[in-house]
Amino acid sequence: MDTCTVVENIYLLAIITVLSVLQNVFFALKVEKECTSPNSHAAAIERVSCANRNCMDSYPTFMAVMWCAGVCLKQAPAAFAGLLYLVVRHKYFIGYMGQTSQSTPGYLFGKRILFFLVLMCLVGILNYLLAHVYGSEYRETVETFTSFTSTLLLIP
Amino acid sequence: MDTCTVVENIYLLAIITVLSVLQNVFFALKVEKECTSPNSHAAAIERVSCANRNCMDSYPTFMAVMWCAGVCLKQAPAAFAGLLYLVVRHKYFIGYMGQTSQSTPGYLFGKRILFFLVLMCLVGILNYLLAHVYGSEYRETVETFTSFTSTLLLIP
Amino acid sequence: MDTCTVVENIYLLAIITVLSVLQNVFFALKVEKECTSPNSHAAAIERVSCANRNCMDSYPTFMAVMWCAGVCLKQAPAAFAGLLYLVVRHKYFIGYMGQTSQSTPGYLFGKRILFFLVLMCLVGILNYLLAHVYGSEYRETVETFTSFTSTLLLIP
Repeated sequence: MDTCTVVENIYLLAIITVLSVLQNVFFALKVEKECTSPNSHAAAIERVSCANRNCMDSYPTFMAVMWCAGVCLKQAPAAFAGLLYLVVRHKYFIGYMGQTSQSTPGYLFGKRILFFLVLMCLVGILNYLLAHVYGSEYRETVETFTSFTSTLLLIP
Repeated sequence: MDTCTVVENIYLLAIITVLSVLQNVFFALKVEKECTSPNSHAAAIERVSCANRNCMDSYPTFMAVMWCAGVCLKQAPAAFAGLLYLVVRHKYFIGYMGQTSQSTPGYLFGKRILFFLVLMCLVGILNYLLAHVYGSEYRETVETFTSFTSTLLLIP
Repeated sequence: MDTCTVVENIYLLAIITVLSVLQNVFFALKVEKECTSPNSHAAAIERVSCANRNCMDSYPTFMAVMWCAGVCLKQAPAAFAGLLYLVVRHKYFIGYMGQTSQSTPGYLFGKRILFFLVLMCLVGILNYLLAHVYGSEYRETVETFTSFTSTLLLIP
């Protein structure tokens, strides 16, 4: 198996993963800076730690479902949804640091993206099973449909 | 590399991943509902948060070892052990919400499944290294043995 | 796709993953032992829980970036960096249990390893994109350079 062929199928997912790791490091540095700063309030430390913990708790779930969706169906819509998720997570983190009430819309948006990725996984697996049983292949129709649907996530 | 061939080797693992993600979302919604409910006790919130945190802490460990075991050796026993782990985790979460003492057996059961998956990884890697060095292939014997052993996990 | 060929490209990463899972279980047992021990101080429980939480929070980030680096570029330097990360994490955990001030160097060292792995990912993706666009292949030069650079991580 040529490694280059593998990279061809996952390089967009890898880019999103690297971006998410850089974002994680950014969050961790933000928490560290707030904790070591001499003139920071206990409430601010509590808030930034809580925002970081919420983001970290949902991180493995997001990674698992994004990679599954990308490998089982098609990487482009999965990576696009992942990018949107990162943007939403950033807004959530910044909003949480400011005020708690701002974080709710971001959290709901994240749920919608996760739902879309789970749906992609299910369609990919179902498509494989159907192709395995009936011998017919609906992949191309499904892929076109998914690429179209992923743009609908941009609607706020 | 045809993507369909990749999906053939991992579709059971992907199904378990999707199930685990849905379970994670279920846990998160449970925590959210308990926190926003006006007439919930602080002890109940603390308990459900703790159960969720315990489940989330061990989640990446479980995903990593399940995928390794499935890719290195064989996906069917790994996915079966993963399914058992999800059942055990559900019982652990529900038991934790009721009373702390009920959670201990579930935690021990989870450790046994993880141990089995780690063993599968080690056998798969060892099998590859042996085949690489001696040129002989014990994979078929090992795979039959593993499929048989995974049913032993059902013993309570 | 022969499964054995896949294992050939990832077996070092799988070994590191299994080691990290065993380390996670060791950390969890340490926390459990400290919590159930009758004559342990609240400060010691707090310290070991905090060390465990810090390690667990950064675990999915480390796994994602190590696997990406290993798959996109080359597995040997990625696995070597992963092994160093596990050693550093162990020193961090032990140092945290003793005294808080000892943990800072370990944390910084971990950041340097993560930075190296992120760099490997970026080089791997960039290399693929360049090869895709220009039709030329710098992979071999890059791989030799990376194997050499990974030894520089040993400098304290």
